[in-house]
Amino acid sequence: MTDEKYSLLETIHYPDDLRKISRKDLPKVCEELRQFIIDQVSVNPGHLGSSLGVVELTVALHYVYNTPQDHLIWDVGHQAYPHKILTGRREVFHTNRKYGGISGFPKMAESEYDAFGVGHSSTSISAALGMAVASHLKGDDRKTVAVIGDGAMTGGLAFEGLNNAGVNKADILVILNDNQMAIDPNVGGITNYLTNIATSPTYNRLKDDVWNAMGRLSGLGPKARSMVGKAQHVLKNMLLHHSNLFEALNFRYFGPVDGHDIASLTHVLADLKNIPGPKVLHVLTKKGKGFPHAELNQTVFHAPGKFDKTTGERIQRNNDIVYPPLYQDVFGETIVDLAKLDERVVGITPAMPTGCSLNQMMELYPERSFDVGIAEQHAVTFSAGLAAQGMLPFCNIYSTFMQRAYDQIIHDVAIQNLPVVFCLDRGGLVGSDGPTHHGVFDLAFMRSIPNMTVAAPMTEPELRNLMYTAIHHPKGPFSIRYPRGNGITPDWRKKFELIPIGVGRKLKEGEDVAILSIGHVGNFVSEAIPKIEEKGYSVGHYDMRFLKPIDTAILHDVFTTFKNVVTVEDGVIQGGFGSAVIEYMVDHGFQAKVKRLGVPDRFVEQGRPEELYRECGLDSEGICNAVLNILKSGPC
Amino acid sequence: MTDEKYSLLETIHYPDDLRKISRKDLPKVCEELRQFIIDQVSVNPGHLGSSLGVVELTVALHYVYNTPQDHLIWDVGHQAYPHKILTGRREVFHTNRKYGGISGFPKMAESEYDAFGVGHSSTSISAALGMAVASHLKGDDRKTVAVIGDGAMTGGLAFEGLNNAGVNKADILVILNDNQMAIDPNVGGITNYLTNIATSPTYNRLKDDVWNAMGRLSGLGPKARSMVGKAQHVLKNMLLHHSNLFEALNFRYFGPVDGHDIASLTHVLADLKNIPGPKVLHVLTKKGKGFPHAELNQTVFHAPGKFDKTTGERIQRNNDIVYPPLYQDVFGETIVDLAKLDERVVGITPAMPTGCSLNQMMELYPERSFDVGIAEQHAVTFSAGLAAQGMLPFCNIYSTFMQRAYDQIIHDVAIQNLPVVFCLDRGGLVGSDGPTHHGVFDLAFMRSIPNMTVAAPMTEPELRNLMYTAIHHPKGPFSIRYPRGNGITPDWRKKFELIPIGVGRKLKEGEDVAILSIGHVGNFVSEAIPKIEEKGYSVGHYDMRFLKPIDTAILHDVFTTFKNVVTVEDGVIQGGFGSAVIEYMVDHGFQAKVKRLGVPDRFVEQGRPEELYRECGLDSEGICNAVLNILKSGPC
Repeated sequence: MTDEKYSLLETIHYPDDLRKISRKDLPKVCEELRQFIIDQVSVNPGHLGSSLGVVELTVALHYVYNTPQDHLIWDVGHQAYPHKILTGRREVFHTNRKYGGISGFPKMAESEYDAFGVGHSSTSISAALGMAVASHLKGDDRKTVAVIGDGAMTGGLAFEGLNNAGVNKADILVILNDNQMAIDPNVGGITNYLTNIATSPTYNRLKDDVWNAMGRLSGLGPKARSMVGKAQHVLKNMLLHHSNLFEALNFRYFGPVDGHDIASLTHVLADLKNIPGPKVLHVLTKKGKGFPHAELNQTVFHAPGKFDKTTGERIQRNNDIVYPPLYQDVFGETIVDLAKLDERVVGITPAMPTGCSLNQMMELYPERSFDVGIAEQHAVTFSAGLAAQGMLPFCNIYSTFMQRAYDQIIHDVAIQNLPVVFCLDRGGLVGSDGPTHHGVFDLAFMRSIPNMTVAAPMTEPELRNLMYTAIHHPKGPFSIRYPRGNGITPDWRKKFELIPIGVGRKLKEGEDVAILSIGHVGNFVSEAIPKIEEKGYSVGHYDMRFLKPIDTAILHDVFTTFKNVVTVEDGVIQGGFGSAVIEYMVDHGFQAKVKRLGVPDRFVEQGRPEELYRECGLDSEGICNAVLNILKSGPC
Repeated sequence: MTDEKYSLLETIHYPDDLRKISRKDLPKVCEELRQFIIDQVSVNPGHLGSSLGVVELTVALHYVYNTPQDHLIWDVGHQAYPHKILTGRREVFHTNRKYGGISGFPKMAESEYDAFGVGHSSTSISAALGMAVASHLKGDDRKTVAVIGDGAMTGGLAFEGLNNAGVNKADILVILNDNQMAIDPNVGGITNYLTNIATSPTYNRLKDDVWNAMGRLSGLGPKARSMVGKAQHVLKNMLLHHSNLFEALNFRYFGPVDGHDIASLTHVLADLKNIPGPKVLHVLTKKGKGFPHAELNQTVFHAPGKFDKTTGERIQRNNDIVYPPLYQDVFGETIVDLAKLDERVVGITPAMPTGCSLNQMMELYPERSFDVGIAEQHAVTFSAGLAAQGMLPFCNIYSTFMQRAYDQIIHDVAIQNLPVVFCLDRGGLVGSDGPTHHGVFDLAFMRSIPNMTVAAPMTEPELRNLMYTAIHHPKGPFSIRYPRGNGITPDWRKKFELIPIGVGRKLKEGEDVAILSIGHVGNFVSEAIPKIEEKGYSVGHYDMRFLKPIDTAILHDVFTTFKNVVTVEDGVIQGGFGSAVIEYMVDHGFQAKVKRLGVPDRFVEQGRPEELYRECGLDSEGICNAVLNILKSGPC
């Protein structure tokens, strides 16, 4: 890669190189960096909008702070592409999010500049506080900066971190990157509040006065610090009459400042660097900044897939072919159908209306649709409250994010046996988001919970019918998990049918080996069976459909008929579906050779789903080989 | 129960009866109610301090609101005794927290006055919002009130609820019961903040003006509402210059008011009842109010056990006998010993310094001890940050509360393989707190997590040595769970010894049956063995000590030697320790009769631990019977 348009950027291998560049050239660095990201992400899909929004902020941070000695923690990490590019990963950036490539998120194991690994939202303040406290105890002279979006600020963990940092003397700077967007527009009191303080003329005038004062004070040499301190005191007094949420929590609040003004950002950060204690800098940025298509359509350009970097047109699949639907759209259309049938049906999403396709219902039934912001715990307990008063809530949370609400599922829903329907999107190996986002724990953790029905459809019509069945289930929580991406059934809009609770499906008779699967991976089993039968074996296949209650009639039948049994699930192998099957076998005194296939006991990295399923032996070939192995035959 | 001193209270069976009493007699109702609680809790241990603190508030709420049509939700629920006594449970209050008795917490299944079940902290706002939204959708005319302590306000879920309620038009009243205490004194920015607004003279003067104005306005008939609305507008404008945290989140803020002035409370609540939308009433109360010993020593009298209601003296056990220690004290002393040995050792607790006995370390090493408030998610991610910078954090969280930080364990600790030591106190069946508090999920949910070491000591010296071993473990998270209450070893302070990771102990040779146990329940196995051997059988006993990595040498040995195997754990039977044992057996082609003993797949109610262990077949008799049953012998 040698290109005139990256003449400055190509001289920057590490932040040390950046810090040698003169201030006046920083705008050009930003321009090149922004163009580099657009060039790269247009052909290699990733998170565009958030990264374009923090180009200036990233350059300013690495310019002013002494990274990696000083620590930068990027909340969520979607916005960390400029950071990665400036910290030794420009040359390998084309491998971003690919199998064997660099991670789409900051990751400690990948670079010493990635001070703390991220992926899920709202962790940065707590982690930064821990790191700053450790530095203090060790006597290190480090600065710790957390960059967190206004969307992530709605997560309770961020508040817990602020609340605790406010009573700690730790020297941390929280940069509130306020773009009024997560993936979808942000919602909640705090979002309105930030808009108010960012747009109030009185407030801003006060701020401007102080900033001007500080501008004059900084750079005056040895006295500067004490004078800035005095300015702070003035600011504090002014704020006594405008005490804000952050000040309420003992943070010093600065801003709002323009997050795209690199000169001003470097000055402000240089000032703040010398102010001890917990402080917030409120920075206003625009998601997608500098790429007009992304600025205009922020939700789409959060992670747009491939696109034409000139026209902004997204490169779509051939529209003449009828593809199977995305599972999320099956959910999205089905909940609308159910809402029509039963006025008690309501939908809840924590900040993922587009990702989970609840947006269709939000348009048609705005009163009965709730985007509660990034707040999974609240999403579940709020659903419990709705259910306690006779509603039928569908609470849609990605499997990996449902981990955040485990206690609320147990304590607020299951103990009270409330009829909340949990729809767990993105179950299984999700692909390029990698280990922080794979939805592999849910089958195991849901199954431990009393009163919980745990189901996973193998196809789109099954998902539809499970959702239909859930609202006819007399009582209690009902969990339905399904994968990211497309199903297998182009013609999926069938008439609703009730599914008997705890009853699976015998898909195929067989004699030599029974394969028991749950969920979408059953389709990989269906692909594997002809290959196994080519070798002369007769294979039975059961789609168990329910992990809990598990279909004991099928299990009884299988263990009285087969001496060889293989279980297949795309969840953790310890304690999940396969374990439930052998628990039944052992509890009932059956004996058989059982091979359990699932996600192994390690964190699986990123890649395309098919690469990851292959790696875990869960693609059709892996399943085929495992089955042949139990039959003591050679591989397929 | 007929007693002159309860002459008024005895006329109140339900809130309807209370509402017939004249206002002037309400102080006497409060006095009798308070005395009744002291009389009862002095002989039947329970949560004293919180309940004494809300006597007036409870009477006022039931007096003003039309319960159960209107909904009261008590956060945590420790403070709900007055509520229970006024809502049909006075006569059975002596069964509070007992086996088969009434629950120590509000519980939907127990009474229509318990609008939502509680136990864990910070759920009330989210639940109230869900219930209020449901009422709105159904067109019910109900009021919804959540009562939450300032301690519970530090939990992220409470903030998520506030943030979401602030943009919702739902008609909810959040009563902030500000006593500056959870079980221990509260910590965190918000606590300081509440103290500031509660004690600022300027602020209070403004408030008083408005309250006086409102006092004159209310009760003026049809115009009152619009005039109160105008007063609100005035208040809003005044507050623009004192914008507070709740106002920032779109709540109307009222207060602070004296929570022990019953006359004023009933007036204020009557006014607030008619103001629509989300609002906060800040009420100042004193924990233990009216019982001087409890007011003076709030932490001890949170749940004091039996006490002399005249002298306030707590009824202690015989001090001449050397009892085995509480497991929590073994933790508390051991972490101090380890902190002496290694300066990287730090201790973290979310608001349980007394409950987990970190208070010893907090005195000796205040710089290295962190009470982060009720904030389990933050406790874990903060620990991850400390570990990322080379500290050795011991993060002590009760098993049941660790459910709140499941994602943080996976995402912030385990994926990054950081050396955080999780100490899970109160593992197993905890007793009188009941289903919300049993620590029965942790073995199953920890075992699913890659990189995690999962251990449970059978005795106090084992706990000590596991903690010692954990800081010598080269890398990665390490979980140690132990029960509530006393161990078995009076002389437990032994020299530290390293325990090899993943290695169990053969406690006893045997021939007919092997019992494999993990954790403290191994002692029940030891008690059961003589009874089994009386019947002529020879029993082997293995304390596995580690669930993960599990001791495969022992398992290999057991399954090559024994045809009968019994596993014993005090955790959920699905996916836990017993499942790990049979997974090994099946994976390695062994065959044996295996009986897994554990907590059954339902929520276990309250009672003394021995009652609950018996009910679950996990006491020595239950274990004996299960073993004899697998041996096809009659019961013991």
